[in-house]
Amino acid sequence: MRFLKGHGTDNDFVILPDPDGELDVSAALVAALCERRTGIGADGVLRVVRTKLCPEVADQAGRAEWFMDYRNADGSMAEMCGNGVRVFARYLVDAGLAGPGDLPVATRGGIKKVRVGVEGEVSVDMGPATLHGESTTTVAGQEYAGLHVDMGNPHLACVIGDPVVQLDLTHQPGFDSAHFPTGVNIELINAVGPRRVVMRVHERGSGETRSCGTGAVAAAVAAARLAGEDTGTWTVEVPGGTLSVVLEAATTHLCGPAVIVAAGEYLT
Amino acid sequence: MRFLKGHGTDNDFVILPDPDGELDVSAALVAALCERRTGIGADGVLRVVRTKLCPEVADQAGRAEWFMDYRNADGSMAEMCGNGVRVFARYLVDAGLAGPGDLPVATRGGIKKVRVGVEGEVSVDMGPATLHGESTTTVAGQEYAGLHVDMGNPHLACVIGDPVVQLDLTHQPGFDSAHFPTGVNIELINAVGPRRVVMRVHERGSGETRSCGTGAVAAAVAAARLAGEDTGTWTVEVPGGTLSVVLEAATTHLCGPAVIVAAGEYLT
Repeated sequence: MRFLKGHGTDNDFVILPDPDGELDVSAALVAALCERRTGIGADGVLRVVRTKLCPEVADQAGRAEWFMDYRNADGSMAEMCGNGVRVFARYLVDAGLAGPGDLPVATRGGIKKVRVGVEGEVSVDMGPATLHGESTTTVAGQEYAGLHVDMGNPHLACVIGDPVVQLDLTHQPGFDSAHFPTGVNIELINAVGPRRVVMRVHERGSGETRSCGTGAVAAAVAAARLAGEDTGTWTVEVPGGTLSVVLEAATTHLCGPAVIVAAGEYLT
Repeated sequence: MRFLKGHGTDNDFVILPDPDGELDVSAALVAALCERRTGIGADGVLRVVRTKLCPEVADQAGRAEWFMDYRNADGSMAEMCGNGVRVFARYLVDAGLAGPGDLPVATRGGIKKVRVGVEGEVSVDMGPATLHGESTTTVAGQEYAGLHVDMGNPHLACVIGDPVVQLDLTHQPGFDSAHFPTGVNIELINAVGPRRVVMRVHERGSGETRSCGTGAVAAAVAAARLAGEDTGTWTVEVPGGTLSVVLEAATTHLCGPAVIVAAGEYLT
């Protein structure tokens, strides 16, 4: 089975080219591929298949040739991944399956508009951020206030004065479960310069991670609001690298590195 | 750059075929390859090169065609790895670079005698175990007695009554630093049947790992001694799988799975 491996700000993926929909990608296969020692190792799998061949997204086939069939490392299906769709688009262009420029990608979360050059960074239209007021989180006994930002998934983005580098995020930060009944992704943010923030993130279900695309957008939204702005380009430094977030009146864009590091055959 | 990925009881390696010694494998390249998210991901790198082309082991060239140039994940050089040399031999036979049977492999720790079939498990002569009396370790406030076994590296192999599955090995177990001035690998062992043990290991410099070849031999030696035996075949269950250890009067052998899971090109 042919594969590639790629990453965006340390969020890594096994890519399975399957243009004609011939692969039987079971949950067990995905889990085996993602296992870091006995498999290839990754945070998830991106199967690359023509949209028209997949009944679950066939309604998108007229507008997007390729479907990102995204699976979590445990084999479960997922709707979307901001870093994953950027790596997916980089693969399509590198492989000659799509030309550079504006590229629509079908996902279980609807069509995503990606912009990708011949080389370099890749950006994706993440849709609008929706604000739902304020709430608080508690990290190591200290309470911080933040903004509830919905990016399709819930975020509590907290711009704080304490250095985020010193926080202990090994445990689940406290949050208001009445406000977030299905849990919440929590961003701790320092404003470090003009339109520039440093962010750490505790992801619902995953714990602290090295990058989170929707979290980076939520961080930029919260920092911009504190600065009295609602449009502009923000730099978001995450543990896995540097992302740019463009805030527009009607939508948001996430931009950053997307790199293919290896290509080969899975032998077992 | 061409690579393969393989593992033995969850100890995993990037294999770099370099028969003619043409690769410039810097510490930085090794570290980048072993990085689990931005590289291929592995515990170490096995460069495959003809012994006669490497001045540091050229004295072994008359007896072993192939040199296992083993590097730790941080890029530093290492002498030997019991799981690594078994994966190395599996690659040589799979690639047609050596025939099945008894296969000498040059290492910085001298020539290792490996036995490898067309398929299946791979065994390696680990040399004799040397005993240096008893010592103790402290795990979560509880003291356990064990045997100091030298396998080229120091081990404290403790056959205990408490279930090893319940121990907390997240911290460095206590040990007698006068007895082990350069540190020690610590095995916690339950005897679970005739010539059968379950082992967990805390490796010097690495913390708890899922497998340790020299540690498995040390565990068999300690359990055999308690059973009043000094030869025989022992089964050692480690978190990453099952190994067999053959104790002979003059030497020891480690046998277990060695699997090549992927082959490809590293692109960056």
